[in-house]
Amino acid sequence: MSYDFGLFPNMATKAHHLVVALAFTVLSGVLGFPLNQEKKDGVSCGYQSCHATKPNLLNVHLVPHTHDDVGWLKTVDQYFYGDRNDIQHAGVQYILDSVVDQLLKNPDRRFIYVETAFFYRWWKRQSSSMQQTVTQLVNEGRLEFVNGGWCMSDEAATHYSAVIDQMTMGLRFLNETFGLCGRPRVAWHIDPFGHAREHASIFAQMGYDGFFFGRLDYQDRARRMMEKEQELLWRASDSLTPPMADLFTGILPNGYNPPEGFCWDQLCDDPPIRDDPDLEDYNVDDVVQRFLLIANSQARVYKTNHIIMTMGSDFQYENANLWYKNLDKLIHYVNARQANGSNVNVLYSTPSCYLQELHRANLTWPMKTDDFFPYADDAHDFWTGYFTSRPALKRYERISNSNLQTCNQLEVLGGQASRKGPFGEGDSQTLRKAMAVAQHHDAVSGTAKQHVTNDYARRLANGWQHCQVLVSNSLASLSGSSAERVYCDYLNISVCSLTESSKKFTVSVYNPLARPVSWPVRLPVNGTAYNITDAKGRSVDCKVVPVSSATRGVRRTRGFAINELVFQVQAPPLGYSTYSVSLLKNGPPPASRQHGAPIVIQNKFLRATFDPDTGLLSSLSNLETKQAINLTQNFYWYNASNGHNSKSNQPSGAYIFRPNSSTPFIISKTARTESIQTSVVQEVRQWFAPWVSQVVRLYADSRALELEWTVGPLPIDDSLGKEVITRLDTSIKTSEFFYTDSNGREVLQRKKDFRPTWNLKQSEPIAGNYYPINSRAYIKDDLDQLTVVTDRSQGGGSIQNGSLEIMLHRRLLYDDVRGVGEPLNESSCIYPNGLVVRGRLLLSLDRPATAADTHRPLAQEVVLQPLLSFTDGQLDTNTRLEFSGLQAALPPAVHLLTLSQWDQELVLLRLEHQFQSWESKLNSQPVTVNLQKLFSTLDVLGVSELNLSANQWKDEMRRFEWTPQKEEKPLLKTFENPSVWEVTLRPMEIRTFLLRVSVR
Amino acid sequence: MSYDFGLFPNMATKAHHLVVALAFTVLSGVLGFPLNQEKKDGVSCGYQSCHATKPNLLNVHLVPHTHDDVGWLKTVDQYFYGDRNDIQHAGVQYILDSVVDQLLKNPDRRFIYVETAFFYRWWKRQSSSMQQTVTQLVNEGRLEFVNGGWCMSDEAATHYSAVIDQMTMGLRFLNETFGLCGRPRVAWHIDPFGHAREHASIFAQMGYDGFFFGRLDYQDRARRMMEKEQELLWRASDSLTPPMADLFTGILPNGYNPPEGFCWDQLCDDPPIRDDPDLEDYNVDDVVQRFLLIANSQARVYKTNHIIMTMGSDFQYENANLWYKNLDKLIHYVNARQANGSNVNVLYSTPSCYLQELHRANLTWPMKTDDFFPYADDAHDFWTGYFTSRPALKRYERISNSNLQTCNQLEVLGGQASRKGPFGEGDSQTLRKAMAVAQHHDAVSGTAKQHVTNDYARRLANGWQHCQVLVSNSLASLSGSSAERVYCDYLNISVCSLTESSKKFTVSVYNPLARPVSWPVRLPVNGTAYNITDAKGRSVDCKVVPVSSATRGVRRTRGFAINELVFQVQAPPLGYSTYSVSLLKNGPPPASRQHGAPIVIQNKFLRATFDPDTGLLSSLSNLETKQAINLTQNFYWYNASNGHNSKSNQPSGAYIFRPNSSTPFIISKTARTESIQTSVVQEVRQWFAPWVSQVVRLYADSRALELEWTVGPLPIDDSLGKEVITRLDTSIKTSEFFYTDSNGREVLQRKKDFRPTWNLKQSEPIAGNYYPINSRAYIKDDLDQLTVVTDRSQGGGSIQNGSLEIMLHRRLLYDDVRGVGEPLNESSCIYPNGLVVRGRLLLSLDRPATAADTHRPLAQEVVLQPLLSFTDGQLDTNTRLEFSGLQAALPPAVHLLTLSQWDQELVLLRLEHQFQSWESKLNSQPVTVNLQKLFSTLDVLGVSELNLSANQWKDEMRRFEWTPQKEEKPLLKTFENPSVWEVTLRPMEIRTFLLRVSVR
Repeated sequence: MSYDFGLFPNMATKAHHLVVALAFTVLSGVLGFPLNQEKKDGVSCGYQSCHATKPNLLNVHLVPHTHDDVGWLKTVDQYFYGDRNDIQHAGVQYILDSVVDQLLKNPDRRFIYVETAFFYRWWKRQSSSMQQTVTQLVNEGRLEFVNGGWCMSDEAATHYSAVIDQMTMGLRFLNETFGLCGRPRVAWHIDPFGHAREHASIFAQMGYDGFFFGRLDYQDRARRMMEKEQELLWRASDSLTPPMADLFTGILPNGYNPPEGFCWDQLCDDPPIRDDPDLEDYNVDDVVQRFLLIANSQARVYKTNHIIMTMGSDFQYENANLWYKNLDKLIHYVNARQANGSNVNVLYSTPSCYLQELHRANLTWPMKTDDFFPYADDAHDFWTGYFTSRPALKRYERISNSNLQTCNQLEVLGGQASRKGPFGEGDSQTLRKAMAVAQHHDAVSGTAKQHVTNDYARRLANGWQHCQVLVSNSLASLSGSSAERVYCDYLNISVCSLTESSKKFTVSVYNPLARPVSWPVRLPVNGTAYNITDAKGRSVDCKVVPVSSATRGVRRTRGFAINELVFQVQAPPLGYSTYSVSLLKNGPPPASRQHGAPIVIQNKFLRATFDPDTGLLSSLSNLETKQAINLTQNFYWYNASNGHNSKSNQPSGAYIFRPNSSTPFIISKTARTESIQTSVVQEVRQWFAPWVSQVVRLYADSRALELEWTVGPLPIDDSLGKEVITRLDTSIKTSEFFYTDSNGREVLQRKKDFRPTWNLKQSEPIAGNYYPINSRAYIKDDLDQLTVVTDRSQGGGSIQNGSLEIMLHRRLLYDDVRGVGEPLNESSCIYPNGLVVRGRLLLSLDRPATAADTHRPLAQEVVLQPLLSFTDGQLDTNTRLEFSGLQAALPPAVHLLTLSQWDQELVLLRLEHQFQSWESKLNSQPVTVNLQKLFSTLDVLGVSELNLSANQWKDEMRRFEWTPQKEEKPLLKTFENPSVWEVTLRPMEIRTFLLRVSVR
Repeated sequence: MSYDFGLFPNMATKAHHLVVALAFTVLSGVLGFPLNQEKKDGVSCGYQSCHATKPNLLNVHLVPHTHDDVGWLKTVDQYFYGDRNDIQHAGVQYILDSVVDQLLKNPDRRFIYVETAFFYRWWKRQSSSMQQTVTQLVNEGRLEFVNGGWCMSDEAATHYSAVIDQMTMGLRFLNETFGLCGRPRVAWHIDPFGHAREHASIFAQMGYDGFFFGRLDYQDRARRMMEKEQELLWRASDSLTPPMADLFTGILPNGYNPPEGFCWDQLCDDPPIRDDPDLEDYNVDDVVQRFLLIANSQARVYKTNHIIMTMGSDFQYENANLWYKNLDKLIHYVNARQANGSNVNVLYSTPSCYLQELHRANLTWPMKTDDFFPYADDAHDFWTGYFTSRPALKRYERISNSNLQTCNQLEVLGGQASRKGPFGEGDSQTLRKAMAVAQHHDAVSGTAKQHVTNDYARRLANGWQHCQVLVSNSLASLSGSSAERVYCDYLNISVCSLTESSKKFTVSVYNPLARPVSWPVRLPVNGTAYNITDAKGRSVDCKVVPVSSATRGVRRTRGFAINELVFQVQAPPLGYSTYSVSLLKNGPPPASRQHGAPIVIQNKFLRATFDPDTGLLSSLSNLETKQAINLTQNFYWYNASNGHNSKSNQPSGAYIFRPNSSTPFIISKTARTESIQTSVVQEVRQWFAPWVSQVVRLYADSRALELEWTVGPLPIDDSLGKEVITRLDTSIKTSEFFYTDSNGREVLQRKKDFRPTWNLKQSEPIAGNYYPINSRAYIKDDLDQLTVVTDRSQGGGSIQNGSLEIMLHRRLLYDDVRGVGEPLNESSCIYPNGLVVRGRLLLSLDRPATAADTHRPLAQEVVLQPLLSFTDGQLDTNTRLEFSGLQAALPPAVHLLTLSQWDQELVLLRLEHQFQSWESKLNSQPVTVNLQKLFSTLDVLGVSELNLSANQWKDEMRRFEWTPQKEEKPLLKTFENPSVWEVTLRPMEIRTFLLRVSVR
């Protein structure tokens, strides 16, 4: 029943052994689903396995742990094996070997493990007797998983969709391997550089009882220490009904390190406990004295008579004996002092055991509703550079997510045949794993070394290769045609050898959204006239425009198309449509227009005007709402600090943004422009410098103005590091406010030089006002809202009223001394002189009250883009040219977040209400979906609802309840569904289901 | 019966458990002695526990090992605990923890352990269940001890007496702890910097089957590789009957490191074996390929189809899992290739298992009779500096040995009362351990860091404190007087507060030699006339001379005596005599004579003359033999290379001697002189520079001319490192030969620019001709032999015919890049401007045929010096003023090497024939001693003979027999003793006995 669905191929046999004893829960009138509910009699994991504490003493919870980056200075596999120890000494295989050995030596000892990407690699190479041993340790709570996602994700540059996926993958592995005792009770983000509210919301919905982290603004920490507010209740959604998104949050005392002088890892040099009186340097008294001092001083900045100490750090416990041998002694000698009246009781513990004691304390806790961005560890050390670092990787990760969702959907819709079909064996797991790895807080964050970044990208590419086979098989199955399919991954730089050379080909457009969507398509071609017909044989308006000269520089030797064929395509929900293209005429490209006079581009929705003197945008109007704003847009660069500065020697680097001056250099006051105006698209092409150009584009059907920017290679022959921004200066009266999304979901209000929870002393007027933008940012006043939808995560701010700036690209000459040990100076074989990056900003101008009705679907279209596949020549006549996996489009408020094969018979479905409660009169309403009427080709035989991470039945979710300081303890409401099959979604709600399906 | 005699106090109870099952051997008509003969049925340690090999393949013996310096960059206890890992990452407690764990995981695995100083520290802290586990591993041969001494001794600067002691202590612990399975079969000196022949002889007599080391001259190695002579038979004595001192010797292939690319310790960065095909960088094929290449290439420079690889290095295996996990894989994957025709078979092994295979090969082996000094690892990198490095430590170690032997003897002679008596509890074990630690190859060698050197000295001082109590108790018991005894440790710099201030005191002189000896005594005083009487009340000739002004500089603020009281004392064998001293007259010191005219000092044996113009020695005559030589002696310094040199960038340092020029700088062509001539002593005092002075001294009764040199602080304000020598230039026609002793025993012939076993390319004309001098060196021709007896180990050479130079002191400004990481630039609180060192050379001039009759006893008198103790005032009249532990003096050829309490009832006795077979017509004869008639106060009830290290019954010693290439295989002769109690000693023979004694 618990068929292992290829995610962990080497586990199949062993997993079978483990799940024989599964207890199935019958829910919703169908057979239960394969959550591993195993928990042996007498087993005491979780809270029951905690050591007793002493109510009248100060209890010090020692938490042995290792922090294992899923790639950073070394690749994930180098870290796992302990390869390239010349770069950094770290080998996770040995850590797990050693910890298990040491846990067996003393039943009092505890260990927590966090990163399932590593644990999985290790587990599958263990003998079955070792697996049994480890299972026993887990069952007894001696080895406890915390967090438990595939990685510890970045919080500033990740999209919630990928975060939920990676958490689900890690937690699923733990559930399948260990059952109930493998479910983490605590979320643990000890290293990420700032904390997103959406992450907290996600964790709450995943059933975590609490959340601990290590990094927060130094001013924030100082105030919280003084006021004992380092432990708090985080209300992580303004839309979900409390306490659905309430998360108890604890700030750890020493980041995630042990107190000074008490690091006994092989990577540390602190003196071991020397307790043999026959030998030199007996130091027990000294150690105990120092420890008591630290414990008592730490107790003064926390509320209860329990404190936590993280005894571990990066890649520690490779030789766990060093730690445990000395911790055993520490506990022994410190507790021995109780006989002499000492008030300190030390014990082995875990974050959940510590949390349990905080919960038992039955206190009230301060409430927080904003987030922990930006993070500064000193006055001139704002970690706001990584919001933008490695923009190409950030975009590639976002495209890969789109591809993975498509791959997942087509695996479900295509059935068995998608995994093994005419194009061979395909799978989604390779890309799923690569995406999970890429969520790590040194991956998509752009803070890994270059060679590791290359590895992340390579993994994504390899994952996509596996998915391509699956997608081809699935489309072959759905369309009935096994004609070879080609995927053109370089369309963004106008490269696709098939379309460049073919005289007749078809384009298949798959739409991963649950509503029909229309997209513009641009294909590199060498002809000047084409005929296009849609799936129904109707002719489609199309135009040939010359390839932008900027593109020519970017694509290098990959392709030489001179033109682009532009047309609008449509595809049904979770389905595809097929277009046939025939070459009509070869010849030179059509001429573009050089300007001297005012330029305007416009369609039925928008009008953009340009200043004829400067070539810059000058205004934007919404023709439907009849609103207009002044809008100037240009490119600038901040001169990155090189660290030689009277205030601080902090340079800009992969993590940290520190401009030398608050005034950015303008790249050019004027742009050379060309324009192209066709019935399909209107463009103004702008050149600012050899390394900065842009196409401002308006498609006939679009409610958004597209700014396609091309930046790079950033010149460094002047030895100045550069951080390039684009800035939109408008007539909107913003009063120092602006808005950014959190991980692509809820939007948070930001205010210049202000933090909601403490009295900010601003020391970096630019970097200290930057926030992460994952999918959108906007500025508004009572009348106008200008929303910018981004195609990747970026940093941005609103430094002047009416202005919004977004950092696009960074090239730096110094390391910022946070460990990565490299300047962020990207180049590659293809771009030896520095990376060129291209991206898009989509601008929409709306009335504030209705803006979300535009930017919510718009952003989803950018996140989940259509997948184009091409076949050369003509298709068989019996080919099915159009298909939809859904019976009907879902309502506009509902986003189909996940549709993914779970095992042979089950699929995982997540439906999401994509509006905040206050965003839209129209869409911020509860909405009901009937699951039985969802799919066009699948019968839904049964359904069970789970928590967000799909590792617990929804109705078995029991979280600790906490009382806020200034209000009543919120009681969990359960909303009744209209019927067994009908599920209601409230604003910002995500509901997770396992469906038993059969092909109709 | 196996009473633990306090050596390992924490072991008492546990050791009792272990020795319950002792099998006693009845020998020589008395009850057997407590050698632990335990070996359980079915136990298969030693050679029987070796893994099978494959006769038709190349067998690669992988030997997992750790090399744990008993102090070097850190102190021995810092190394044990893993303290000060900022200096060097190393923690032996963890190594042993980890290795035991890992051995338990796979019964194929093997490990060898070497340094008992560490193993002992670890063992005594283990639980009894862990001790049982380890015993099991030892019994199964999975954990094997090799070498097994307390440390791995230095070979160039050690005295055989202390080496035998430290080996005995280590091996005794192993015997008592593990019985037969704890006896090492193989000697293992992988790190010492050159190899002494006497060490090989000692190892042979200790029953080792073979010997492995790692370092030898690079030219020597090159030739041996070419001719497959890296494994050889070392005939280590020219006096002992073969094969008594024959030792099979193997030179390891990579020093003691693993082959390049195969170091899997946490301290290394070589790539681990990555054998999960699902992960990146699968490298099994590459690893196997590289290994096969290395194995086959190594096989080409060794004789058999067995080769050894040392898989470990300095302080490795702290996390043994890394090594073993990868070695398991290596063995698996390499041997898997045999199915495809690979000729290589890899196995876990030990040096003894490898040795067994070499023995089974039944080949003949090249013979070597010289030694492996000096050691050079490159053309300009001669490790001959450490022969002299840290001369003060070298001297202190030598004095400490004398004190320890005295302490040992008095513990036996004084009985129970010596350990607990009127002065409290005393013991010999503290000093014994300190001395054992000091033999380490980075201790007495002078190649440890300064702080570690201080620790060695501190341990010796602490040991001596413990011994002082024992000695006082013992002397109180023997003399019947509990009057307080004072020990004056600074007599060499004329400091002793008691004699400086007392008007009446006694001097007790203990003689640790087995024959009556007369010594000169010099006591710092402030009076000008004294009356002295001996034990029989007879008046003793004594003279007061002024303290040398050189001494005044040396002693700083420790004392202010203006005069020295000089007289000759005598003490019986293993006994003491007491002298009473009374002040007769205070007053100014007697004047010394300033010179302008020729000076002669002479007694009935010798005459020394000085050049009146230069003040230097000019000739020496033996008045008995009527021989005379020209003899000029002066001081020089070599300018130490700073490493900036066209030939090589090697500087002089703690290890390496590399003068910038072959011509030393003369310190002064002339000496300012004064002389003192009395009936007791005649002195010429010479001043060469503020930092070099000397007293040339002839006592009335002495056959040796004493040169007491005082050197330091070496000036370095010219930024030049200095290596100070004294050079004796004589008229002796040496024809490029000279002679040095090996560890204080047999003498080896040296020849300039020559090595007996290969065609030397000399690249360092000075450093390449230096050899260690432990107790003596001589030059000779047919008529004259000038022997120099030293008071410590020093380096020296004969660069010109007739000349002998000895390096006295070194002060260097650069580290020599061999790991110690400090320049050898000694200073201390007392000598902040640099260390001042004082020492003595004793010169004797004889006919070559009889020279040994003088220098053998002379050298023993320097090694075992009388111990003076003082009591203030007058002794009780019933005090016994004289005592001898022996019934009679032993014959001149016999030296009592060891007399030491073994346990409650037994004493360890070593008798030694101290002449080489060719040295003396008179003394190089077999000599017989009756053990029953040995002691004056002890009855010998039983005796059993043991091997040299006292861990095996002599008649059970069975060593591998080996066939030399060019002669018959020697068969072990056994010589019959004249009777049960009479033992015959042949030249250079040492015989070791356990005696059951009772106090008469």
